[in-house]
Amino acid sequence: MALIVHKYGGTSMGSTERIAQVAKRVAKWARAGHHMVVVPSAMSGETNRLLGLAKELAPAKQGTEYLRELDMLASTGEQVSVGLLAIALQAEGQPAVSYAGWQVPIKTSNAYTKARIDNIDDGKVRADLNAGKVVIITGFQGVDEGGNITTLGRGGSDTSAVAVAAALKASECLIFTDVDGVYTTDPRVVPEARRMARVSFEEMLEMASLGSKVLQIRSVEFAGKYKVPVRVLSSFTPWDIDLATEAQSGTLITFEEDEQMEQAVVSGIAFSRDEAKVSVLGVPDRPGIASQILGAVADANIEVDMIIQNASKDGMADFSFTVNRNDYARTRDLLKDKVVPALGAADVVGDTRICKVSIVGIGMRSHVGVASKMFRVLSEEAINIQMISTSEIKTSVVIDEKYLELAVRALHRAFDLDQPAV
Amino acid sequence: MALIVHKYGGTSMGSTERIAQVAKRVAKWARAGHHMVVVPSAMSGETNRLLGLAKELAPAKQGTEYLRELDMLASTGEQVSVGLLAIALQAEGQPAVSYAGWQVPIKTSNAYTKARIDNIDDGKVRADLNAGKVVIITGFQGVDEGGNITTLGRGGSDTSAVAVAAALKASECLIFTDVDGVYTTDPRVVPEARRMARVSFEEMLEMASLGSKVLQIRSVEFAGKYKVPVRVLSSFTPWDIDLATEAQSGTLITFEEDEQMEQAVVSGIAFSRDEAKVSVLGVPDRPGIASQILGAVADANIEVDMIIQNASKDGMADFSFTVNRNDYARTRDLLKDKVVPALGAADVVGDTRICKVSIVGIGMRSHVGVASKMFRVLSEEAINIQMISTSEIKTSVVIDEKYLELAVRALHRAFDLDQPAV
Repeated sequence: MALIVHKYGGTSMGSTERIAQVAKRVAKWARAGHHMVVVPSAMSGETNRLLGLAKELAPAKQGTEYLRELDMLASTGEQVSVGLLAIALQAEGQPAVSYAGWQVPIKTSNAYTKARIDNIDDGKVRADLNAGKVVIITGFQGVDEGGNITTLGRGGSDTSAVAVAAALKASECLIFTDVDGVYTTDPRVVPEARRMARVSFEEMLEMASLGSKVLQIRSVEFAGKYKVPVRVLSSFTPWDIDLATEAQSGTLITFEEDEQMEQAVVSGIAFSRDEAKVSVLGVPDRPGIASQILGAVADANIEVDMIIQNASKDGMADFSFTVNRNDYARTRDLLKDKVVPALGAADVVGDTRICKVSIVGIGMRSHVGVASKMFRVLSEEAINIQMISTSEIKTSVVIDEKYLELAVRALHRAFDLDQPAV
Repeated sequence: MALIVHKYGGTSMGSTERIAQVAKRVAKWARAGHHMVVVPSAMSGETNRLLGLAKELAPAKQGTEYLRELDMLASTGEQVSVGLLAIALQAEGQPAVSYAGWQVPIKTSNAYTKARIDNIDDGKVRADLNAGKVVIITGFQGVDEGGNITTLGRGGSDTSAVAVAAALKASECLIFTDVDGVYTTDPRVVPEARRMARVSFEEMLEMASLGSKVLQIRSVEFAGKYKVPVRVLSSFTPWDIDLATEAQSGTLITFEEDEQMEQAVVSGIAFSRDEAKVSVLGVPDRPGIASQILGAVADANIEVDMIIQNASKDGMADFSFTVNRNDYARTRDLLKDKVVPALGAADVVGDTRICKVSIVGIGMRSHVGVASKMFRVLSEEAINIQMISTSEIKTSVVIDEKYLELAVRALHRAFDLDQPAV
């Protein structure tokens, strides 16, 4: 008998038929003797519907008071879900009780629409679990010091589930989604991509931040911080699948760097198309130019990813960096209008038709030559590398967007990711 | 400058366009210098949609745990409304803040789906009002001692609004509905029916309990208990109507029995079609038969309205009463199966094709002969009276359903209700 947290996404909660399936699955786990806590998302489409109503009333509204009301509004979607799931469980003969974030309470900062969880009181929940009830807690939301409802931002239900699991010291947090685990790369690009049975927390963090959208990155950070074992698995398997099989399915995000994990040098290939490159050309090479350029960009609330400064030639350097593609035009205009004149630089050029491809693997720590193998593979495919960035467990390159599939497939094959794990 | 409570029904909140109109109206009152508190209902159809989802999951569920979850679910409709209205007011440039019942808090009993308001804390609300904000509070809901969400039952938003007005000692509670006031009788039956500018609380209570569905009866009781002046008026007048005109429109439910009110002996004609008559025939006339019959009915949770015991003849009496038409079959079966054999009565007969017509007027207290005038009017129309019941300010009769319109029109004319008030 263990304390287990289940999290179900909006698609899994998308209709009363699906909610009934979720209830049957949870009841199966409860009948097996587990203490069950469930964190469901809002029914699919509901949060967008609510925020759409707000937009109709106030197309361009900003400010704290407005954001407070958005949270008041958006948090109702999850409250509907917990009520319905409790009713579905009761209809299954399984005692269940639901709580909104403020009832637990899940205390958060007061940063409306992107609050951070401060702490979770486990008193009520433990009492209900000991009384034999399944406890259902709203995802995505909490309450601040002043008693105002807050939400955690998009995908926040993953974070809620992991945070609840951490607070309750759960044995495992199972995230039921519409995919059956974490893959070595996107199977839509590489049909031979394999589901990983286990992946380390650090690899998952890199994968998530590099564009694998299985889990919200904050939930992975939370899992890392509190050492919560998280399993990603499919909610589309039949609910009455054998529990022991289900408990081993999907991908476990783990903290034990066991021997099995040592074997794979590269665990997965991540990629992202949402990139754009900006270069400031002919910058006088003197101390402080990086901060002058990037300071202006940061002041405009634009996030910068990879950064490269070319070697100086004749006292002039080129300075390049990548931003989210949505921020490209704004970044270029900002540099042209303000930074280039101030610096006395030559010009600003950019490219939105690029992509980022990364190899990720905890084994890279102890293996040399992994990055150079990556570069060789790309070179053999005649793919030009525009930028490079490395960390302890990943190497990323920026290449022309049109080579994305080619690069990912070649790397996937070269690092033996299409072979069954040993 | 006064503290004013506005209540808007589900139709008034039915779309973002209508919510924007409500916001403009409220902002007009706020700009005139009033401290404004608004209690909106859920958007029309929303509560039914939510309860429909619950029914799909648990068609026949009962019990406290289930009802708790129904309240969790149903209360979200009002939370959406307050968030949207706050956003609409802010878009109008009017600072506004919304609260769910638990945030105020509005403390209630723990009788889920039909909770009663125990008390309302006015601290937060007053602070916001003094800071120049419009305060928007969810109708229909509160929180019990244990921190569980409760709802007040259908139409509960009227009660919330009046209770909030009482707690804040508001100058007036304006209930905006889809009718423009309280009429001398239903205009669909009597086209000459007049809107009353004022009606006494006691008359309104009789009208409400007798089938005029303008206001929920509990809200009228609450208004009476705490002496809250309530005005019923239309939300379909243009929002930019002159405020002084709007403030005098509709019908004021008042506690001052002023001279003006003395003039009308009968203020209105109420009627109800939801009635059925049950008669136990040939009951041995001995002490305790009323309680034996009505005790069995009450035990089955069936509400009895009018009761008549005929004079005894040969030691046998007939005992008749009315119930809601929906309870008729159950009442008759109960009496046939249990009560008639136990009492040694002759038979049970009933009639579902009856109706109740009542004249209501505070002036009946000081005028004799009002009831007999009613009976004479009906007799002149050859309408047979089956049952009579009277109170200090009303006289009700049960008649054949087919005479309803005829009776109401004749009485309306006979008591000069189609004439302008003096």
